[in-house]
Amino acid sequence: MITATAVLALDLVGTFAFAISGATLGVRKQLDLFGVLVLAFAAATAGGIARDALLGAVPPAALVDWRYLAVSIFAGLITFYGYRGVEQLNHPVQLFDAVGLGLFAVTGAEKALAFGLGPSGAVLLGMLSGIGGGIARDLLVAEIPNVLQREFYAVAALLGAVCVVAGDALGLPATPVAIFGASTCFVLRYLAIRRNWQLPVAGSRHDR
Amino acid sequence: MITATAVLALDLVGTFAFAISGATLGVRKQLDLFGVLVLAFAAATAGGIARDALLGAVPPAALVDWRYLAVSIFAGLITFYGYRGVEQLNHPVQLFDAVGLGLFAVTGAEKALAFGLGPSGAVLLGMLSGIGGGIARDLLVAEIPNVLQREFYAVAALLGAVCVVAGDALGLPATPVAIFGASTCFVLRYLAIRRNWQLPVAGSRHDR
Amino acid sequence: MITATAVLALDLVGTFAFAISGATLGVRKQLDLFGVLVLAFAAATAGGIARDALLGAVPPAALVDWRYLAVSIFAGLITFYGYRGVEQLNHPVQLFDAVGLGLFAVTGAEKALAFGLGPSGAVLLGMLSGIGGGIARDLLVAEIPNVLQREFYAVAALLGAVCVVAGDALGLPATPVAIFGASTCFVLRYLAIRRNWQLPVAGSRHDR
Repeated sequence: MITATAVLALDLVGTFAFAISGATLGVRKQLDLFGVLVLAFAAATAGGIARDALLGAVPPAALVDWRYLAVSIFAGLITFYGYRGVEQLNHPVQLFDAVGLGLFAVTGAEKALAFGLGPSGAVLLGMLSGIGGGIARDLLVAEIPNVLQREFYAVAALLGAVCVVAGDALGLPATPVAIFGASTCFVLRYLAIRRNWQLPVAGSRHDR
Repeated sequence: MITATAVLALDLVGTFAFAISGATLGVRKQLDLFGVLVLAFAAATAGGIARDALLGAVPPAALVDWRYLAVSIFAGLITFYGYRGVEQLNHPVQLFDAVGLGLFAVTGAEKALAFGLGPSGAVLLGMLSGIGGGIARDLLVAEIPNVLQREFYAVAALLGAVCVVAGDALGLPATPVAIFGASTCFVLRYLAIRRNWQLPVAGSRHDR
Repeated sequence: MITATAVLALDLVGTFAFAISGATLGVRKQLDLFGVLVLAFAAATAGGIARDALLGAVPPAALVDWRYLAVSIFAGLITFYGYRGVEQLNHPVQLFDAVGLGLFAVTGAEKALAFGLGPSGAVLLGMLSGIGGGIARDLLVAEIPNVLQREFYAVAALLGAVCVVAGDALGLPATPVAIFGASTCFVLRYLAIRRNWQLPVAGSRHDR
């Protein structure tokens, strides 16, 4: 059985991984230390903050619980002062990131259901919880969000959220469904990275 | 007399037109299929979602009612797989878009009044309902929003919302006022396209 | 003792200064008149609107009170039609901007505390109130937000908000704490401009 402590621990692992991805982009874009910390926090929490704002669950959890901020700052400082080391950890970071994606998608969909949203809304907010941080991170440095272009990122989050909604509709117990949904998202994302899965691109046919 | 069914039908027509505009931009930017669908949904619903979040009308209608999602996905798929055909429909799409703009501006202003906002707030939220989708669409591909630059787009939405607020202040019956406001917005936008109306640009004087 | 009237007056001064900064950017980017007004309003109010949305204090004050809109439009029109004059006022505008930054950071942190947020959340929302307008302004023209790159801007807002939260935790009276916090932010920002203070940039070490 998953305890609340285990969920919180996994949540903070995901927060840490997302914060690393934000801080890494900030360093690449030559932001100053503060800008790097903002990008770390935005990447780690924007998805959940947007979800909570749209659910009316305000103030958002990421602003109420100081641990999200602390973990984000910690990850940002590590990245800023140890950038070469973090760069070499690219593979582990992607793994953490895939864990965070699955977890955020599942817990986001669960929270949306708990607030009374229907199936399509819960899937959308679950996905948004997973990918919103990456979108905010990329927009803040004026780039097209990676998740709109990259192999199977958002789709993995979508399918994780679908598992939760389907399980809820079928009356299955929440904990195994959550584990299954997060694992599905994680495995899909992992395989997509390994095998370089891509969705079709219309432009490749139309723009030569 | 406008029935609720007629309003919903027009609302979905506007959603469809806005989704086409989002998906078209996604294809041009060579996003993958999923990115195209996200842009379709964002263009169609971001204005209404922002309005609802600012009014505290959460969860937003576009997340609660699955038909907005279904129409957006449908428009996105048509655009993705039939891009050449949609491109040739540029004129009808602009017409639908102008219909959607007028309708969203009017219903947005009405909703803001119903939630107790004053005149200036209701005008702003009506306009935001109309143009927010286009702003989100363009920001997601890292471009300056077209509506901040293009001939009379936001101004048409603004004037549609002003009609609603003025009618409300004068105690006029809501339905004819709504029809008048949406028609005003539509006609202005249509004439602006036909006759290429432009607002003055300061830069043209100062930057040579 | 600070009266409510004095706070409102200072708030509108900050709004005016931020609106000038938004309109100036709009003119530089060759937006049309309407786009310039949108940028003025966004720069002046986006921080407070985001804060209110995240606190659940909806509809946001900037939409309810027409004076924020009126001041923003006034500043936008002055900038649009008197651009050369405003450009020469660069120094006074930066001064007003620093006043607005301090005031918004302090009042934002106070409002967050009043809505029950804890210390870290109140500091974050105070800072967001100060810098959110500048972020929205820059994103709307598809640029990396200046406040993520510029000398000591966000850090000054952060420290202003920290003063409020610390004063609240120590049980000090609110008014002198607010004056001290806003002054701290203002002086830091002013010195940062004068002496060109910079935060460290990781990129300068890693990218040659």
